[in-house]
Amino acid sequence: MKMVDVGAKAETERVATASALIRMGSATLRRIREGQVEKGDVLGAARLAGIMAAKRVPDLIPLCHPIRISGVEVEVSPGKEGVHIQATVRTVDRTGVEMEALTAASVAALTLYDMLKSYDRGMAVERIQLEKKAGGRSGLWERTAVKPGKARRP
Amino acid sequence: MKMVDVGAKAETERVATASALIRMGSATLRRIREGQVEKGDVLGAARLAGIMAAKRVPDLIPLCHPIRISGVEVEVSPGKEGVHIQATVRTVDRTGVEMEALTAASVAALTLYDMLKSYDRGMAVERIQLEKKAGGRSGLWERTAVKPGKARRP
Amino acid sequence: MKMVDVGAKAETERVATASALIRMGSATLRRIREGQVEKGDVLGAARLAGIMAAKRVPDLIPLCHPIRISGVEVEVSPGKEGVHIQATVRTVDRTGVEMEALTAASVAALTLYDMLKSYDRGMAVERIQLEKKAGGRSGLWERTAVKPGKARRP
Amino acid sequence: MKMVDVGAKAETERVATASALIRMGSATLRRIREGQVEKGDVLGAARLAGIMAAKRVPDLIPLCHPIRISGVEVEVSPGKEGVHIQATVRTVDRTGVEMEALTAASVAALTLYDMLKSYDRGMAVERIQLEKKAGGRSGLWERTAVKPGKARRP
Amino acid sequence: MKMVDVGAKAETERVATASALIRMGSATLRRIREGQVEKGDVLGAARLAGIMAAKRVPDLIPLCHPIRISGVEVEVSPGKEGVHIQATVRTVDRTGVEMEALTAASVAALTLYDMLKSYDRGMAVERIQLEKKAGGRSGLWERTAVKPGKARRP
Amino acid sequence: MKMVDVGAKAETERVATASALIRMGSATLRRIREGQVEKGDVLGAARLAGIMAAKRVPDLIPLCHPIRISGVEVEVSPGKEGVHIQATVRTVDRTGVEMEALTAASVAALTLYDMLKSYDRGMAVERIQLEKKAGGRSGLWERTAVKPGKARRP
Repeated sequence: MKMVDVGAKAETERVATASALIRMGSATLRRIREGQVEKGDVLGAARLAGIMAAKRVPDLIPLCHPIRISGVEVEVSPGKEGVHIQATVRTVDRTGVEMEALTAASVAALTLYDMLKSYDRGMAVERIQLEKKAGGRSGLWERTAVKPGKARRP
Repeated sequence: MKMVDVGAKAETERVATASALIRMGSATLRRIREGQVEKGDVLGAARLAGIMAAKRVPDLIPLCHPIRISGVEVEVSPGKEGVHIQATVRTVDRTGVEMEALTAASVAALTLYDMLKSYDRGMAVERIQLEKKAGGRSGLWERTAVKPGKARRP
Repeated sequence: MKMVDVGAKAETERVATASALIRMGSATLRRIREGQVEKGDVLGAARLAGIMAAKRVPDLIPLCHPIRISGVEVEVSPGKEGVHIQATVRTVDRTGVEMEALTAASVAALTLYDMLKSYDRGMAVERIQLEKKAGGRSGLWERTAVKPGKARRP
Repeated sequence: MKMVDVGAKAETERVATASALIRMGSATLRRIREGQVEKGDVLGAARLAGIMAAKRVPDLIPLCHPIRISGVEVEVSPGKEGVHIQATVRTVDRTGVEMEALTAASVAALTLYDMLKSYDRGMAVERIQLEKKAGGRSGLWERTAVKPGKARRP
Repeated sequence: MKMVDVGAKAETERVATASALIRMGSATLRRIREGQVEKGDVLGAARLAGIMAAKRVPDLIPLCHPIRISGVEVEVSPGKEGVHIQATVRTVDRTGVEMEALTAASVAALTLYDMLKSYDRGMAVERIQLEKKAGGRSGLWERTAVKPGKARRP
Repeated sequence: MKMVDVGAKAETERVATASALIRMGSATLRRIREGQVEKGDVLGAARLAGIMAAKRVPDLIPLCHPIRISGVEVEVSPGKEGVHIQATVRTVDRTGVEMEALTAASVAALTLYDMLKSYDRGMAVERIQLEKKAGGRSGLWERTAVKPGKARRP
């Protein structure tokens, strides 16, 4: 077990997008939409917590490199089944930011859970997954490009 | 938005269990089972990262209280669809440890993602959910108590 | 230099309130009031950052004890000279939470500076001060009780 | 709300200087000058805490980028009204270090408050402000350039 | 692997003392004694870093519990072979503070290494060891009580 | 006291190797070798904790620069006197990684202490020392190159 040496890799622009869904009952969703959550602006808090979590990845994921994140964007939007989260992280560095994007999406979802749990303890976070990554030696990867039969969907 | 005052609540024993599943292809699962993952003991690393993450909750989830965690257990076991994670956190404090258990399960799953991503970028983390909580004023909550027809979604 | 031993002190309810003002030009204030800040909801972000900072005190202030904060409230309200911040922190512990309240107020103010600095680099944070503390051996302290002649207030 | 992408900006030398004043009564100031503070070398502790705080900015200020700080200097000098703090932070990176300098100055001041609060709870931190920044696209900014009549407010 | 549950243990006063020695050449020692170290007050910095490190133990040592440290004292004194460090940590909690004392001593030593390394890269930290612990179910343990023949001391 | 400005130094490949020994009784060593430690895979946990600790150096050692670590390797191997630890850290940056290697070795050793302390509180960490550093202006340094007569090195 080691943190792989990336010192010989090129410093290039890299970007990764991850998504997640926190599934919840319609009553809870309505509360969010109507701004009736007692704890306040849950979507804003989730966005901020997601951004901050992207910066904590080296502290959380044992083998991740410290990375100079150059930008983070977290979108949080209520849908039919629950709240959809999409996190995009950018860097100019020697390794990718997939873990940063996945962690931002996860922590945004957990923050929603925390602020809504008094209404609904049965919520579940689903489909935390990479949507796209670009840059670096391994180049472009897109979820839609994955062959359908290959089981990786829930 | 505020961190709710729990100063008047009783200091009692509290426990929470959360679970998650990281879905992956059978080839990746086989690698884990046969110890053929280049990065080493992924299950051990995921367990440790999950335990450590439970302690970082107040840094990650904005409105969570610092809690004196008294114990953490993270189980990580390969199944048919992927690797199942179950995290149990205990405390003797004024508020519950649901977020600690959910965060431990999430970070254990993300650690697996990180160590296996070179084989399979299509993996997805599913069903991060509370299984059970006990102790405190709101008492026992169990997922199995959720009405069956409603599937596991509220 | 040492972290004073508080082990023999009684575990009691303690509360502290601190305030700060970030002084800014009227054009910047108007932007906040009219929701015209490009970076988004600055008041919400400041509130959240203040709450989270209260939890980081032991990491920042060398001789501060780790404290089980039981509640934090941060108010951020635009006034005539700038944005007023008031932070209240509560605990049931062996030592007070003055530093937690002062740090919450400071970091909320710095967060406003960060999000508004592209409009106005001349902003200044003023009067980070304790307003009140209660609980513990030294009992109640209130700023208004300070003798006026003592000048210490700006 | 997002962490703005700075990936396209040039990596250049950047420096920022911030200052603060912690106002205190003359008796407390005399204690510092005569080395009669029971908690020990308060000026040294404040300097060190300020330096360390500059490194914690990405953890504290939600939208700040992780930055490779290349140098930090914190001066702490007792004056007539209290203790003056000046923090200078340098980097070679894609974004500036104003927040690092302001945070270093703030935490140095809060550390002084903490170590002196048993003598004087009425102390107040004043004028946490940027004095100068250089480097980067927006170039040089100096507080002295602010029009005098406007006091220190923009 | 798990963080053992200590919830059923009694909350009692506990104390632990650990020591370390950083061995260095006489020229370097002389510099310290005569205050000729360019980086400044190395002993003060080591003391402060040791105290702060005691608070970071749950972040560093995977299976350690978060503990409410009630006091920390770090002594740093130049001797014949190098600088001797002694750290004492106290708590009123359900588990002991041996790791906090050992970590404080280690980080104090590493801080000295850092500040002196430009003079002497050959310094070595020796004998980081527990000297004494008291309180809790396992009661008093003292290093002098270890049977001499058991060699474990260098 | 200041964090020295390294902004003018060249960004070059740098590597440092440090070692440590945790001395322990033969019964404890046998337990490790035979996998009879109740807390589980101690060698794996120590390796992971060492890797993670290398990333925490700027938080622990006051004057250390934040560094973009490009790789970390921690070897942990039971020998005759105890467990030997060797940590190698690499970067492409403006300053060296000696402190990262020394901290990784120290925290790996402390993690072993923590997981084994119920068997043997008398263990001691010895010879935390730099073995080699390369890269940067000061170039290659190797422990074996130190003149033997100078005694202070083991």
